[in-house]
Amino acid sequence: MQIGMGKAARAAYHLEDVAVVPSRRTRDVDEVSTHWQIDAFRFDIPLVAHPSDAIMSPETAVAVGQLGGLGVLDAEGLWCRYEDPLPVLAEISEKADGSTAFLQKTYAEPVKTELIQERIRQIRESGVTTAVRISPQHTQDLAPHVLSAGVDLLVIQGTIVSAEHVSTVDSALNLKQFIADLDTPVIVGGCADYKTAMHLMRTGAAGVIVGVGADAWSTSDRVLGIRVPMATAIADAAAARRDYLDETGGRYVHVIADGDLTFSGDIAKAIACGADAVMLGEPLSGAHEAPAGGAWWQSVAAHPKLPRGQFAAAAGEPVGSLREVLLGPADSPDGDKNLFGALRRVMAKTGYSDLKEFQKVELVLDLH
Amino acid sequence: MQIGMGKAARAAYHLEDVAVVPSRRTRDVDEVSTHWQIDAFRFDIPLVAHPSDAIMSPETAVAVGQLGGLGVLDAEGLWCRYEDPLPVLAEISEKADGSTAFLQKTYAEPVKTELIQERIRQIRESGVTTAVRISPQHTQDLAPHVLSAGVDLLVIQGTIVSAEHVSTVDSALNLKQFIADLDTPVIVGGCADYKTAMHLMRTGAAGVIVGVGADAWSTSDRVLGIRVPMATAIADAAAARRDYLDETGGRYVHVIADGDLTFSGDIAKAIACGADAVMLGEPLSGAHEAPAGGAWWQSVAAHPKLPRGQFAAAAGEPVGSLREVLLGPADSPDGDKNLFGALRRVMAKTGYSDLKEFQKVELVLDLH
Amino acid sequence: MQIGMGKAARAAYHLEDVAVVPSRRTRDVDEVSTHWQIDAFRFDIPLVAHPSDAIMSPETAVAVGQLGGLGVLDAEGLWCRYEDPLPVLAEISEKADGSTAFLQKTYAEPVKTELIQERIRQIRESGVTTAVRISPQHTQDLAPHVLSAGVDLLVIQGTIVSAEHVSTVDSALNLKQFIADLDTPVIVGGCADYKTAMHLMRTGAAGVIVGVGADAWSTSDRVLGIRVPMATAIADAAAARRDYLDETGGRYVHVIADGDLTFSGDIAKAIACGADAVMLGEPLSGAHEAPAGGAWWQSVAAHPKLPRGQFAAAAGEPVGSLREVLLGPADSPDGDKNLFGALRRVMAKTGYSDLKEFQKVELVLDLH
Amino acid sequence: MQIGMGKAARAAYHLEDVAVVPSRRTRDVDEVSTHWQIDAFRFDIPLVAHPSDAIMSPETAVAVGQLGGLGVLDAEGLWCRYEDPLPVLAEISEKADGSTAFLQKTYAEPVKTELIQERIRQIRESGVTTAVRISPQHTQDLAPHVLSAGVDLLVIQGTIVSAEHVSTVDSALNLKQFIADLDTPVIVGGCADYKTAMHLMRTGAAGVIVGVGADAWSTSDRVLGIRVPMATAIADAAAARRDYLDETGGRYVHVIADGDLTFSGDIAKAIACGADAVMLGEPLSGAHEAPAGGAWWQSVAAHPKLPRGQFAAAAGEPVGSLREVLLGPADSPDGDKNLFGALRRVMAKTGYSDLKEFQKVELVLDLH
Repeated sequence: MQIGMGKAARAAYHLEDVAVVPSRRTRDVDEVSTHWQIDAFRFDIPLVAHPSDAIMSPETAVAVGQLGGLGVLDAEGLWCRYEDPLPVLAEISEKADGSTAFLQKTYAEPVKTELIQERIRQIRESGVTTAVRISPQHTQDLAPHVLSAGVDLLVIQGTIVSAEHVSTVDSALNLKQFIADLDTPVIVGGCADYKTAMHLMRTGAAGVIVGVGADAWSTSDRVLGIRVPMATAIADAAAARRDYLDETGGRYVHVIADGDLTFSGDIAKAIACGADAVMLGEPLSGAHEAPAGGAWWQSVAAHPKLPRGQFAAAAGEPVGSLREVLLGPADSPDGDKNLFGALRRVMAKTGYSDLKEFQKVELVLDLH
Repeated sequence: MQIGMGKAARAAYHLEDVAVVPSRRTRDVDEVSTHWQIDAFRFDIPLVAHPSDAIMSPETAVAVGQLGGLGVLDAEGLWCRYEDPLPVLAEISEKADGSTAFLQKTYAEPVKTELIQERIRQIRESGVTTAVRISPQHTQDLAPHVLSAGVDLLVIQGTIVSAEHVSTVDSALNLKQFIADLDTPVIVGGCADYKTAMHLMRTGAAGVIVGVGADAWSTSDRVLGIRVPMATAIADAAAARRDYLDETGGRYVHVIADGDLTFSGDIAKAIACGADAVMLGEPLSGAHEAPAGGAWWQSVAAHPKLPRGQFAAAAGEPVGSLREVLLGPADSPDGDKNLFGALRRVMAKTGYSDLKEFQKVELVLDLH
Repeated sequence: MQIGMGKAARAAYHLEDVAVVPSRRTRDVDEVSTHWQIDAFRFDIPLVAHPSDAIMSPETAVAVGQLGGLGVLDAEGLWCRYEDPLPVLAEISEKADGSTAFLQKTYAEPVKTELIQERIRQIRESGVTTAVRISPQHTQDLAPHVLSAGVDLLVIQGTIVSAEHVSTVDSALNLKQFIADLDTPVIVGGCADYKTAMHLMRTGAAGVIVGVGADAWSTSDRVLGIRVPMATAIADAAAARRDYLDETGGRYVHVIADGDLTFSGDIAKAIACGADAVMLGEPLSGAHEAPAGGAWWQSVAAHPKLPRGQFAAAAGEPVGSLREVLLGPADSPDGDKNLFGALRRVMAKTGYSDLKEFQKVELVLDLH
Repeated sequence: MQIGMGKAARAAYHLEDVAVVPSRRTRDVDEVSTHWQIDAFRFDIPLVAHPSDAIMSPETAVAVGQLGGLGVLDAEGLWCRYEDPLPVLAEISEKADGSTAFLQKTYAEPVKTELIQERIRQIRESGVTTAVRISPQHTQDLAPHVLSAGVDLLVIQGTIVSAEHVSTVDSALNLKQFIADLDTPVIVGGCADYKTAMHLMRTGAAGVIVGVGADAWSTSDRVLGIRVPMATAIADAAAARRDYLDETGGRYVHVIADGDLTFSGDIAKAIACGADAVMLGEPLSGAHEAPAGGAWWQSVAAHPKLPRGQFAAAAGEPVGSLREVLLGPADSPDGDKNLFGALRRVMAKTGYSDLKEFQKVELVLDLH
């Protein structure tokens, strides 16, 4: 579409702008599978829990794994900066919805590599799939420590990650080389367009995280002017997945949607747009087990010079246990509980039996 | 329209997005007919009252019939679970806008077939057209009891009903076979797209209910990601009706719009989009006679594991008697009273003399 | 645009959806003329004051005339029902924003033809152009009394007026015949589409009022489902004017926009869409001279069975004198004062010198 | 697009409607340059501070210059009307968000040419680039005084400035002749469309200011019906720049975006639409140094007959020092601090190294 003379822009859509349309077939809810498998790792539900300190501790990473999803601990988060982060989290819980400056100060404490290793060991011992997140900036420094502690999946995640970072000062991370040298499968992102997704797939990553500034808690649009509506971003990345599959004669790289996922219905919409799994953050902050008592923030909210995310207080009473939040039953009609029971039900109501098939479900565009 | 590369979606519109345009002719309001006939049953107004316990009791079903419409009692509702539902309704009336958990508990009481029969008999005795609703899941069990009590119209209604339910556990209901074996005409739904509507028409149903998740009180979009804007859903079902009429050389299956109908103007819009009749729920909850004192919910709001509808308190003082709500006169400009007097007037103001003709009225699309 | 299969609708736009674009020329504000002439009557400003009892009394009709516009008194309004309407208006002023039932009761008092004649005489005596409004339903009864009292312009106005009213009971008003038999020029409406406007022009009317349900104070959309966004309605009527001018080889019928006019900027937009003059109602209710102390309603708000307009209390303190409201100066940036000084200024800022030229100004569509 | 029959309008978009899309490359933030040069004057950041008395005093003009931008003092503002404007500013600061009448009275005090010269001298002495604004109406009278005091850049700015002003009373300013006769480079505006921008470029101006009524604090839309959404206005002016560059074989006229710039992200969007620099007003009113204590208004808000801008009180506590507002660091995620650090970062995150390149960044249109 034409913005003005000589400047065009593509129309882009949010998950809220689309909705699933029932088809002529329905199915028993018990005959639907929500299984997801990436590399050798198989999950009952297509959930990657967001590596935010607001929801992920070694304990909750284990709990998410035991409930059928994948928890990801932030190797640059509070658990790897403080020997005992519990008093810090308690103070954050009190100051939420207020002091970004306090958050900045809290994250000024240096990361300790021995803490990273200790946290990883704690998760591994439980037997669940073990995954940690590092930022692209610190990948070269921290990856050796992370890998030596033995993770199953490595998540390299920043606001925006490209396969081609230009720097004349540092020797920039060459993602392709780095991944080729590893035995551990890597999930990398975020990205928000076809080309970047395609280039990240070509680095050899097992999964690509999609989503930049799409979130209600992100202020990337206000601060940077960057916002890519999520339905479009997911569909574009899924197109890259398809083309890359063809280009390689069969390498399937998973698309993991991160952002704009608030209610259980959004999970269905993300998969309907082409996602293989969803990265959930804030919706898990309502669980009793959430380490910051319901507060929500992402690491970019603590950026020392240019914070770009809200530091939000708990929205109210906890929604329920992590089990109730993920698997139900729900006792409210608000879409904040039984998140994956709801996914199973929408698949049944539209007649699909697995996630890959459900990506084909029909959508309407509702711009009301 | 393109959501992203390789994923398209059709633009869909709400009743609120459209409006009726006057034409070059006007007509006396007394020379307009709002008569509606389905099978052998003729009604003064094209109203099917929603089988919600919030508005339908045996008494109100009779009252709606006497005022010219069709009342439908829920055979799986409170009147068929409790010998005396009045204390239950009184408690619900107090707890509305709050405890979905309480609603879930209330509906955990089993359905009693003898109560179903008793309630039906009570309605029949009044002489009005008798109709009850059963869910597709319980049709095989409950239909014999319902039919033996003698209903005129059977309404098989669930959130989404398809003509082709896949189940390997239960022997699924074969709607086509079931309807063929019956003498009683059947109304079935909801559905929300051309194909499902067409398949439901091919089961031999006399009427098809259109509408899934379109309602302000539905949370189907939040919970399941399913929402089909109503103007589009109705127009699509009307297209199926037209094609099915052609396919069969003359079987006319009625399209009954259910959802997104709040004000009297919405009734006109639904018919202008192609509906033959409207299923009204919440707008009747403001009548003095409403059994739950103005509270509003649908049965899906009481779902034991995944409620998908609001349990709303009375919006304020009652609007008026059921007669005033349906037939006026109105003493407010809010579109909540004299619902069918308003329909008659818009037909007069646009020069149409019956409902079938009025389906052709011109619309504008207003996306403001 | 396609609403659904087989049902199309035209996209329509509100005045708020459009805005005037400056052009490459500007002009001194003193070199701009806002003169408007209909039949033999010439006005300094293109203003027809709405025949609402909230703003029009014999006194204010005279005042509007003296300030350069055309006041229209309602021959079926309170001044022609009550010998002394001042106590009634005082009571209305107190009950506004509340009791439509009270308004209904007030308007149940019969119209008195001798009062109509007395009020007309009072306006005539001042020397301003004299105009009264009658409804199409009562035109045959009331017109003789109105005409014998000597009006300059007759306004036949209802919610929707067509050139072809179907009635088997009454002998319906044949507008074309009626107008042909008159010496007095007639303004007639409302209408909201090309065809109706064209047919009304063919009745011989001097002016056609455009606007149905477009107003914020109208509830025609809620009650009847009728709403035609104003920018589109005006442009369509202007197209009818152009085609009728061609058809007749030179009869120019004026298009008078009525509805959705709240701020001074809306006047410019209406003319930019093709209007020759604007009918202002609510914006004049803020004048000190407004007879109902700032309250606002139209006659349809008092309909005995189906009211379709709000009965709104004064929005706050009066905005200023009628002179200040119309001609300024303004001491606020809110667009509620100096309404026609603002029109003059936008014409200057876009380089146009008269209203007819200004109808060609460029517009943008802003759907934000 | 068709508004109605025979009246078309172009769809136009706000900065809020567009967003920047990341590309496949990223870059170190330290390798990005935000330099801007107009005529012989070079700036570290592409900032022209708005000549509003709310933010510009001789002191803040100097401070903006020292921080790398261009401050512009209003030669018709309070500093050139009052010997000591500080008490006036203090009183304005108290009355803000209220009395437009008070603002009108304050600006009724005549402009004094000796004060203009004194203020200019004060800025010059600091060594920063010196610029003042005069209105087109007073250019012929005031320019000699301004120029003799020695300004580096002359800003001729009104709500709407055209290259062709029609007046039969005054001898209208001939911009082309005026600029040709000057040694000092001139920046002129506002304008909001391709044609006016092109004609202003042809007057010989060094820069053209783009933006009419696009601002949240402007009431030009309400009062005059004029509003040109900013993304479209900038893109159109940039197209004029390109065509004029071609027409002249190399004269590059700078496009300076003025309006609808609230958060740091809006700066990036304006440049992405084609702007060379941004004129910031209200975002600087939050600086400690702002002379009116956080209140915000533009000169048009004080217009004696038709004010068209809000007189807004301080939004709350000051955001920080002018240095923090412009260059950071930020301790909030709200986009109101570190405005140009944010610009630098979005350029880095999308892989661009200078402003001219960044004008090519991809945009999405998000009409949610």
